[in-house]
Amino acid sequence: MNKKRLLITFLALPVFIISGDISEQYKPNAERIIQASLNNDAGFERLAELCDTFGPRFTGTQNLEDAIDWILKQMENDGLANVRGERVKVPRWVRGEESLELIQPHKKNMHILGLGGSIGTPKKGIRGDVFVVNNYDDLEKKAEKAKGKIVLFNVPFTNYGETVGYRYGGAVAAAKAGAIAGLIRSVGPFSMNTPHTGGTAYEDSVKKIPFAAITLEDAAMFQRIQDRGGKITVKLKMDARSLPESWSRNIVAELPGSEYPEEVIVIGGHIDSWDVGQGAMDDAGGCVAAWEAVRLIKELGLQPKRTIRVVMWTNEENGLRGGNAYRDNYKNELENHILAIESDGGVFNPEGFGFSGSDEARAIVQDIAGLLEPIGSNFIGDDGGGADIGPIMKEGVPGMGLKVEGSKYFWYHHTNADTIDKLDKNEFNRCVATMAIMAYVVADMDERLPR
Amino acid sequence: MNKKRLLITFLALPVFIISGDISEQYKPNAERIIQASLNNDAGFERLAELCDTFGPRFTGTQNLEDAIDWILKQMENDGLANVRGERVKVPRWVRGEESLELIQPHKKNMHILGLGGSIGTPKKGIRGDVFVVNNYDDLEKKAEKAKGKIVLFNVPFTNYGETVGYRYGGAVAAAKAGAIAGLIRSVGPFSMNTPHTGGTAYEDSVKKIPFAAITLEDAAMFQRIQDRGGKITVKLKMDARSLPESWSRNIVAELPGSEYPEEVIVIGGHIDSWDVGQGAMDDAGGCVAAWEAVRLIKELGLQPKRTIRVVMWTNEENGLRGGNAYRDNYKNELENHILAIESDGGVFNPEGFGFSGSDEARAIVQDIAGLLEPIGSNFIGDDGGGADIGPIMKEGVPGMGLKVEGSKYFWYHHTNADTIDKLDKNEFNRCVATMAIMAYVVADMDERLPR
Repeated sequence: MNKKRLLITFLALPVFIISGDISEQYKPNAERIIQASLNNDAGFERLAELCDTFGPRFTGTQNLEDAIDWILKQMENDGLANVRGERVKVPRWVRGEESLELIQPHKKNMHILGLGGSIGTPKKGIRGDVFVVNNYDDLEKKAEKAKGKIVLFNVPFTNYGETVGYRYGGAVAAAKAGAIAGLIRSVGPFSMNTPHTGGTAYEDSVKKIPFAAITLEDAAMFQRIQDRGGKITVKLKMDARSLPESWSRNIVAELPGSEYPEEVIVIGGHIDSWDVGQGAMDDAGGCVAAWEAVRLIKELGLQPKRTIRVVMWTNEENGLRGGNAYRDNYKNELENHILAIESDGGVFNPEGFGFSGSDEARAIVQDIAGLLEPIGSNFIGDDGGGADIGPIMKEGVPGMGLKVEGSKYFWYHHTNADTIDKLDKNEFNRCVATMAIMAYVVADMDERLPR
Repeated sequence: MNKKRLLITFLALPVFIISGDISEQYKPNAERIIQASLNNDAGFERLAELCDTFGPRFTGTQNLEDAIDWILKQMENDGLANVRGERVKVPRWVRGEESLELIQPHKKNMHILGLGGSIGTPKKGIRGDVFVVNNYDDLEKKAEKAKGKIVLFNVPFTNYGETVGYRYGGAVAAAKAGAIAGLIRSVGPFSMNTPHTGGTAYEDSVKKIPFAAITLEDAAMFQRIQDRGGKITVKLKMDARSLPESWSRNIVAELPGSEYPEEVIVIGGHIDSWDVGQGAMDDAGGCVAAWEAVRLIKELGLQPKRTIRVVMWTNEENGLRGGNAYRDNYKNELENHILAIESDGGVFNPEGFGFSGSDEARAIVQDIAGLLEPIGSNFIGDDGGGADIGPIMKEGVPGMGLKVEGSKYFWYHHTNADTIDKLDKNEFNRCVATMAIMAYVVADMDERLPR
């Protein structure tokens, strides 16, 4: 603990002691926000219209830029201030046509999704035998058998953080063992023959090989056939390629503060999605929930002392360029970034927030969370944040991630099943209320949330 | 009630009175069957190998005939008697390439499955606007708007019997209203962007139009866009066509009776499947469970007085030719068909049977079901049967359908997600035990199960 930190600790202590007062003071306005949120039909319909009109919003696509234009226009209509698209240079990966044909033991066209960033195959495809491994150790032990094969990482889903390592690192590991292409069991716990895409990575010093996700069903089948001593032959075709970088935008809009407009509470999600489904859960829901939160605060005539800034970051999925650009654009104003709130875990039934910040700030946040008891989202967990606010959190901005009942999140994550019908209007509305109350109170309370 | 029936009733009454004796008498053998079934790894592995080796077994395909050859060979190896493939003339429908491209409001390749029996589109496809209706009444009221459109039946799943009517009849109803093609919300309660295929029907007097199933997600999206006043434009391409009829086979194998070999208990499922997934649940599981039941009875050295005949009918899905051929082949022996048992509802956790037959027979069957209490499958419901045994039941043969915990059945039914991983070895083994005990006791008990 350095000196500065120590000083803040002592200064903040009185805040901790009187903190029960904040929730008491804001009860009437919190109740108004809850009522307005729960009776709101417009937000969920706006979310559905966004999803249905533009489809998936993959970085570099016209869909994404059209969706951004539409949102900017709606935000202007809502009367939000300083509505703008802030240009961000983004990578451009194109999936193209792709197929995995099972040739042996029987013929079948398998459902696959190439992984974001993967190279393609030669035009005629790569024909080869599949060799199944269960983890990196397994591959290392059997590296001789992997040589010249298409290696499948059949790694059961434990949790995302653990399993996704094979999606990022599998192509490099397989190539090092001499594989001609790589496959991965989709990173998810349940499947209806549902492949999951997501980003992968290469290393400059290692030969790049094509890398795609197959379904849980097909991964299990390959495992069984191999265990039985059978031979698996497939032909993988992928048109995937990277194109020159292009431009996208972070969406920014504000409800300016009445007393400390230079002090900012950021609230948002990422507007880009993978190129499948509708990106409804990941993360249109988070974006629109944050936007609705601010729109409702404004509609209720509640102008907080500090500025609430809605941000919809671009290119979270395959580059994080939006989050990084935001940090760079605002590097001289980050000291006045009081709090950053992101929703990127689906707008399912809200339970509260994860929070990353000082103990002093946590005590205040926990006090405010008491206002969320009526809708059951008053839990404040240990770690909070989100990919897009990660870069500014590293610069010291306290961060919060909306915490929701997430048991189905990884069923749909990065799949064609991430569509608006998986979300529920009432749950969405409770997310809006949860984010609105937290953002509003932190923006309006007398004391500045300490770091 | 006719005279003959009345006579049987009176004759059967004593059976009812002494019927508790049957379960008492067969307890030791039932316990042996349960033990053997629950400790059996070979059956589920055989089921998995069938699914993995041959893939889906659609009528008219080499996959199906190869699977039949393999089963016949295994049955010979098992030492079953009178193992044979009985030739059946079957229809041949070919799906071919198919696609539904969303053109407006955004571009997207949608997941579809053409419906079995549908005609194809012209090579360049059918481009048109989609008009959504919710039921036949709705279509009739708005018939003017359906003219020249691609009509979508967006009918929520209530139960299969009710909802499937739109899959069979939708093409005719849409064509009558002047539609240029038809779409249906897939017949199922849950979707991960999962289309369900299944049979459809035309009428000679009505123009044939192509008919395909879209996912629940896309049906809901089309509904929302239409409700919003938006325009939906798609291009449907289907290569679907019917080819000349070809030959398939019903699989028949027996455990001959020691005293009344001419009296037969039939037990089985249908060996064909749709051309998607593995047809693991529908109905490889039912076939292999019946087969295992008989194999285990034989392995335990239990030769019943009557013959137990495993039958795996062909072409249930798009013709029922196997079930009809069986009735025709055995029409002179149906009087001696004591009972027909089919499993075609998935080999999930067994609950018992549905039974269709006389009250006298029901009392006996209920007594026998007492032997299934240890594995919880002792329920005897009102209606029993199965599509394949339907034709012989119409001729008077008492019928039973295995009843299972079926809450997920229609998640996977006729989809690419009907794969072996959806089944559980222990549940499968309990199904085997349930079918084995019922078949064995009815085959072995002193009295003949009355009609």
